[in-house]
Amino acid sequence: MTKQYTVAILGATGAVGTRMIEQLEQSTIPVGEIHLLASKRSVGKKLKFNGQEVAVEEAVPDSFNGVDLVLASAGGDISARLLPEAVKRGAVCVDNTSHFRMNDNVPLVVPEVNVDALENHHGIIADPNCSTIQMVVALEPIRKQFGLKQVIVSTYQAAGGAGQSAINELYREAQEKLDGKPMQAEILPVKGDKKHYPLAFNLLPQIDVFEEADYTHEEWKMIRETKKIMLGDKFAKDIKVTATCVRVPVPIGHGETVYFETAQEPTPAEIKQVLATAPGVVVQDDPSQQLYPQPVTAEGKRDTFVGRIRADVENPGSYHMWVVADNLLKGAAWNAVQIAQELVKRDLVRVPEGSAELFN
Amino acid sequence: MTKQYTVAILGATGAVGTRMIEQLEQSTIPVGEIHLLASKRSVGKKLKFNGQEVAVEEAVPDSFNGVDLVLASAGGDISARLLPEAVKRGAVCVDNTSHFRMNDNVPLVVPEVNVDALENHHGIIADPNCSTIQMVVALEPIRKQFGLKQVIVSTYQAAGGAGQSAINELYREAQEKLDGKPMQAEILPVKGDKKHYPLAFNLLPQIDVFEEADYTHEEWKMIRETKKIMLGDKFAKDIKVTATCVRVPVPIGHGETVYFETAQEPTPAEIKQVLATAPGVVVQDDPSQQLYPQPVTAEGKRDTFVGRIRADVENPGSYHMWVVADNLLKGAAWNAVQIAQELVKRDLVRVPEGSAELFN
Repeated sequence: MTKQYTVAILGATGAVGTRMIEQLEQSTIPVGEIHLLASKRSVGKKLKFNGQEVAVEEAVPDSFNGVDLVLASAGGDISARLLPEAVKRGAVCVDNTSHFRMNDNVPLVVPEVNVDALENHHGIIADPNCSTIQMVVALEPIRKQFGLKQVIVSTYQAAGGAGQSAINELYREAQEKLDGKPMQAEILPVKGDKKHYPLAFNLLPQIDVFEEADYTHEEWKMIRETKKIMLGDKFAKDIKVTATCVRVPVPIGHGETVYFETAQEPTPAEIKQVLATAPGVVVQDDPSQQLYPQPVTAEGKRDTFVGRIRADVENPGSYHMWVVADNLLKGAAWNAVQIAQELVKRDLVRVPEGSAELFN
Repeated sequence: MTKQYTVAILGATGAVGTRMIEQLEQSTIPVGEIHLLASKRSVGKKLKFNGQEVAVEEAVPDSFNGVDLVLASAGGDISARLLPEAVKRGAVCVDNTSHFRMNDNVPLVVPEVNVDALENHHGIIADPNCSTIQMVVALEPIRKQFGLKQVIVSTYQAAGGAGQSAINELYREAQEKLDGKPMQAEILPVKGDKKHYPLAFNLLPQIDVFEEADYTHEEWKMIRETKKIMLGDKFAKDIKVTATCVRVPVPIGHGETVYFETAQEPTPAEIKQVLATAPGVVVQDDPSQQLYPQPVTAEGKRDTFVGRIRADVENPGSYHMWVVADNLLKGAAWNAVQIAQELVKRDLVRVPEGSAELFN
């Protein structure tokens, strides 16, 4: 008989958590038992898994007793507190928060790019930032084939990256504006920051808080995570990465203009050919048919969509592309479930000895 | 007594035309008579100029008899047909359409950048593309002070760039989506193109039709116009420019992430200092106060707002900035009126002999 896995979803009621449930249902993982964990507030709520009602439980350290696999998306502070407890109890955790991503003991994995990094996990595997995932899925086949020297990305990020409440705020503000009322911003650009600005019919060039060199945390994530995923830390200097992250009034689906310089000088047609057979990538690029990726057509899909592929006509070896993906699926829930699926396939759902100490 | 000018506005009922009227009212130009010209359809409509009702007239060649100055924004084909007629009748034309922009006999002017190009006009002066204007206003002070080698721009362009009907479509689609109905796209991305896609809660990486090398016409405009304005045609190769243009669900106010490489290596603080005293520029850049340009705060203003100024930490001499302006004011109506104001100030409101033949 196939082994059945006991799976816990931490943050099960959120925008990513609910999609983790749905992606897990559609995955190849044989799920025996499921535990839906959330904060005290959500206890009593019932969600469905494979047609069965499951009551939401409060997430506490002992929630992880007997659990094989944890999919976490309840916030960085909660992962920081609870995932070491899960590891201590023998559960392997795939964490969608940013808390452990740059930890040397934690592989940061996009299965299409660096699935082998899973082999050396210590109980916690990090799911990268949404805007980073879709970019590296599109860049890795190019790097492998033609070499990659530099990346300059501008993002067009959906409200959903800040959770369901940010999507609700976008819709509410849009209705306020259409009704001729003032828009009331309470969450964006950053829930915990001092000021809030409307996103509806507007653009906010701030995602997460400001840090070193006047880059936002989101921009640093794209720089650092891209290097860790594509190169590992040792070769981080081999590709230059820089970013500007902008929130746009779209509920779901991040867009990115990715400008990149390769080591070789392929034609745009050669780049399209490589992307056309790349895992997880769908090329949508036919100007004669006005075919290009859009958030409304990417929503609900697991793939990363790439279009507008063309050369910088004055810089040989430099190119543009336009990348769109569902930030809540490939950018979060699906990538996490995909990691879990690989862990199962490779029989890696076990915590190596000594792991718990690494996260004390 | 000061000379009074007879001014005609061609396309007076459109999104740009109505703003030309308003900007002209607020200008220093002594307007004697005003003629509001539009298509047959609009004849009978009444608009106000300085509190007086003015009837809209049909635009025909003889509309320009006795006219000193024409401000045109009725579409490229209409400018192509009527402006040579206006020049023949001795009227100096400031044309907001793209028709004459790359014509060697037509100066393409952003007053903050190349106002002296007006001196050699031949009756037609072109008002550049909206997304180009705000970018060169921000780049020119940097070029003058530190030298400029390369520009890579991604735009976040408002619906208003495609006219009032595109703004109306955006609002209608937004209401449809909020009501749970399918969004009906009829205009965007390009009125005359085969397919139409919703812009509300979406992103459209196509502005204008596709052309050479899979760039859109809008992208080529940004490349070619930037060079003509900043360098003149002779030095066009001295700055490399490349662009990706994306339409975003914002009614008014274009955003741009502008990545640029300078000849020298100033600090971001030095760049900010230069921009702080540059004409037409307002620096909004204080991460500690979450201060940065936004379309909702730029709307209705004549200035170009610049923020998020910072260095590419891995490429000395390369920088990011985020530029926002009201695309219907600085990007169109105000820049045109500003040109007209300069023509008046320099006593250049006359058509040099032999000009009419140039546009036959």
